[in-house]
Amino acid sequence: MTKLNVIKVGGAVVEEPESLQQLLKAFAGLEGLKVLVHGGGRRATKVAASLGIESKMIEGRRVTDEDMLQVVTMVYGGLVNKNVVAKLQALGVNALGLTGADLGYMLSAKRPLKKVKFADGSVQDVDYGYVGDVKAVDSDILADLIAKGVVPVLAPLTHDGNGNLLNTNADTIASEAAKALAKHFDVTLTFCFEKKGVLSNPDDDESVISRITREDFEKYKADGTIAGGMIPKLDNAFDAIDKGVRKVVITKADELGKSEGTTIE
Amino acid sequence: MTKLNVIKVGGAVVEEPESLQQLLKAFAGLEGLKVLVHGGGRRATKVAASLGIESKMIEGRRVTDEDMLQVVTMVYGGLVNKNVVAKLQALGVNALGLTGADLGYMLSAKRPLKKVKFADGSVQDVDYGYVGDVKAVDSDILADLIAKGVVPVLAPLTHDGNGNLLNTNADTIASEAAKALAKHFDVTLTFCFEKKGVLSNPDDDESVISRITREDFEKYKADGTIAGGMIPKLDNAFDAIDKGVRKVVITKADELGKSEGTTIE
Repeated sequence: MTKLNVIKVGGAVVEEPESLQQLLKAFAGLEGLKVLVHGGGRRATKVAASLGIESKMIEGRRVTDEDMLQVVTMVYGGLVNKNVVAKLQALGVNALGLTGADLGYMLSAKRPLKKVKFADGSVQDVDYGYVGDVKAVDSDILADLIAKGVVPVLAPLTHDGNGNLLNTNADTIASEAAKALAKHFDVTLTFCFEKKGVLSNPDDDESVISRITREDFEKYKADGTIAGGMIPKLDNAFDAIDKGVRKVVITKADELGKSEGTTIE
Repeated sequence: MTKLNVIKVGGAVVEEPESLQQLLKAFAGLEGLKVLVHGGGRRATKVAASLGIESKMIEGRRVTDEDMLQVVTMVYGGLVNKNVVAKLQALGVNALGLTGADLGYMLSAKRPLKKVKFADGSVQDVDYGYVGDVKAVDSDILADLIAKGVVPVLAPLTHDGNGNLLNTNADTIASEAAKALAKHFDVTLTFCFEKKGVLSNPDDDESVISRITREDFEKYKADGTIAGGMIPKLDNAFDAIDKGVRKVVITKADELGKSEGTTIE
């Protein structure tokens, strides 16, 4: 099967013009077939604030009421997505910006009330609002376009099939797209974040663990090397592997195309 | 050649949920291949106002400074486009929202200073800012998708090939897309506006002229039946016919799929 790189970028790097341009250059330089998935949360928070709409986060996840849904539709689907597409076109990449509604490629359902354990130990039912949990990915038209050299640029929005857009975590978009595309391609899924990879010592940015097997993961969890927010990230990575993705890479955005960070396989 | 309907809708009808839903139902009900082109100016003006950005219009055209470009990118490319796409998906239409940057399908150049004649008779150089004049349309991938049953939903934004988005009149997007697609399809281009068609008596909404040839047009211009803003609309219509579009229809949005308004051929 032909190789395909699915690259997820988020955080500050996407939202500052200079670092974004550098990232897009590195992405444009990657050979072969590719897909870009982006976030845009900081920008959404800024635009919301300018509109007098308060951003409410619960355990790191955005609560999306009706007003906030309009903001993320504007920012993720319009401002961030279309600017990335235009900049990639200028770099010779035939980009196509998509939400899950476009080509109906990613269907989700509004998240039901969810029990969340808070830092103080209490458990409460939380309504995240217009947030989508992915239900189905139709990768056929997408795969056809990719094979023709089109580079999908995926915004973190899905649709419910009843005419509503839903806010959806960009990491989830990336792993769901990668899993579905694994039917058609030999997929490497790369998550770019602030560190060069999974660190064995959180205080040492150079202590990158180059390769983690499932066995290693269990060992690292047991001895506390891997803890906190990194555990769900790696759970997702192994789930992607189970569903047919060849390998998952966790690296820093400015290392894209240079070094490989942490490889999970 | 296979028939293709390119339908342009704008104005209040796109921006009020009920009339939009009715319009999209009528559009979904049209048989055969189709493309939708939308505006969104009123919504952009509202969002701009909420952000404390003043909308400046000169002779009916929006002046697009840097802040306003961000607003129209959010509103046209995100809010309006993606909601239309999601609603069409719910109606069984495999919609795909596009700006000119997506698939690089419509390239434009920033409009140079333009001499504008004002109502008081004075002529001034006007800088419309980030506004694009269309330079090239690449209809091949678009035609390929349309032939497969995909329905492009075109937002009034283009790109300059250097990474910048440009605000572009939706009527222009519609006629440029129709002309380029006429290489691949037998195209009917329909402009939906507030009246049922071109009126022989502006005070009588039922006085629709059912068919206008070029000869008729010259006659109507000479006797003053057709005047004002309708003249450039019809100039554009005849230009589209000259460039291969089969016919141009001017009608009211709620007549879509029912009656034919004014046909220009």
